[in-house]
Amino acid sequence: MSRGKFITLEGGEGVGKSTNLKFITQWLTDHNIPFIQTREPGGTPLAEQLRELLLAKRDEPVDSTAELLMVFAARAQHLVQVIVPALERGEWVICDRFTDATYAYQGGGRQLDRSLIEQLEKTVQGELRPDKVLLLDLDPEIGLERAARTGAADRFESEHLAFFHRVRNAYRERAGASPSRYAIVDASQSLERVQRDLGQELERLL
Amino acid sequence: MSRGKFITLEGGEGVGKSTNLKFITQWLTDHNIPFIQTREPGGTPLAEQLRELLLAKRDEPVDSTAELLMVFAARAQHLVQVIVPALERGEWVICDRFTDATYAYQGGGRQLDRSLIEQLEKTVQGELRPDKVLLLDLDPEIGLERAARTGAADRFESEHLAFFHRVRNAYRERAGASPSRYAIVDASQSLERVQRDLGQELERLL
Ligand SMILES: Nc1ncnc2c1ncn2[C@@H]1O[C@H](COP(=O)(O)OP(=O)(O)O)[C@@H](O)[C@H]1O
Ligand SMILES: Nc1ncnc2c1ncn2[C@@H]1O[C@H](COP(=O)(O)OP(=O)(O)O)[C@@H](O)[C@H]1O
Ligand SMILES: [Mg+2]
Ligand SMILES: [Mg+2]
Repeated sequence: MSRGKFITLEGGEGVGKSTNLKFITQWLTDHNIPFIQTREPGGTPLAEQLRELLLAKRDEPVDSTAELLMVFAARAQHLVQVIVPALERGEWVICDRFTDATYAYQGGGRQLDRSLIEQLEKTVQGELRPDKVLLLDLDPEIGLERAARTGAADRFESEHLAFFHRVRNAYRERAGASPSRYAIVDASQSLERVQRDLGQELERLL
Repeated sequence: MSRGKFITLEGGEGVGKSTNLKFITQWLTDHNIPFIQTREPGGTPLAEQLRELLLAKRDEPVDSTAELLMVFAARAQHLVQVIVPALERGEWVICDRFTDATYAYQGGGRQLDRSLIEQLEKTVQGELRPDKVLLLDLDPEIGLERAARTGAADRFESEHLAFFHRVRNAYRERAGASPSRYAIVDASQSLERVQRDLGQELERLL
């Protein structure tokens, strides 16, 4: 039995990650591919509790390094409990955000030292990286407008526009540096076109 | 105005850290020394929430690296929000547990790689170390018996005796390696004798 593929969905607020997750899981079902669907931060009871602490708006300013360590704590738990066992069972793992989001939000957005993120990535993941990162790319002004329709803003969604421009640029830089592992999809298109592009990327993985 | 002194109280379960904290703060008050009293994990609203997640007994096994990262996340927040500002105001900081507990519990108890702990210590603390570590040393069998009287066991207190022997040994090794920064107090003595010893150590700091 071969190891499953590890696919992550990335991009800023309101680019359509959650919406297109459903399209991807339908595609996997149609192709009889066993899979699990999960998200970060989160994916286990403890990691979901860490997610709540991370997203909660609070009076206390959150130290960027504390935030980064919480993200990787949740990730360590998620990998050991959920992601690695599924891949080893031969299942594909579809994850709404993963370590690229850390490079984009904590690295780009908060401007934390990238080498610290790399160090933690190595500590927590060893050599494990997503087989394919589906990056939904969109002007943050449009994304934030879309996201505003879906509920109250969390601690990240409450950041300023300049923060989200840095997030977008960090995502694009990472995709540009490893084109074979990333697919950049233009998320300003209609949902039908976005999904046509995503479907083409998925076909390539077979 | 000179920087305050950073004093930590360390030792396994039931050695008397919380009990003797009151003696120490009384001593500081008697000597007209401004101070704050705090604890780890904890000391800020976010860090106390992380403490709750760390101590909670749960069905899900907690990955040791996830635990370590949560401890240092809480510490980063505590340092930036509470400890460093107090020291800079010239106040002494008396903290119930700090990074020695990480070396003892996650390093000794869980047998995590010490160099990873050192790396995180450097990332989160820079060069900051306690000016004096008051290590209450006690056979863990006696400590656990004492601790059992004070309430239901948390996730750490539920570990096996061998775990606590490793914790004690790790504490003693660290104290042995830097004798000028550590004071080992025999916590099997009567409370009066423990406090006489602690008082002598405090006098030396003046
Ligand atoms: N291609 C698209 N065109 C227009 N609206 C979209 C598109 N993709 C998603 N949306 C809408 O944008 C909003 C945010 O989408 P969502 O999937 O929650 O984004 P994300 O999970 O990336 O934050 C939803 O209301 C969704 O219906
Ligand atoms: N020197 C001592 N001799 C006997 N009992 C002690 C001594 N020091 C503390 N105790 C008792 O042991 C119990 C645990 O003490 P505590 O201060 O809560 O330990 P810790 O905070 O280190 O876990 C308490 O009931 C306390 O009264
Ligand atoms: Mg979403
Ligand atoms: Mg105590």
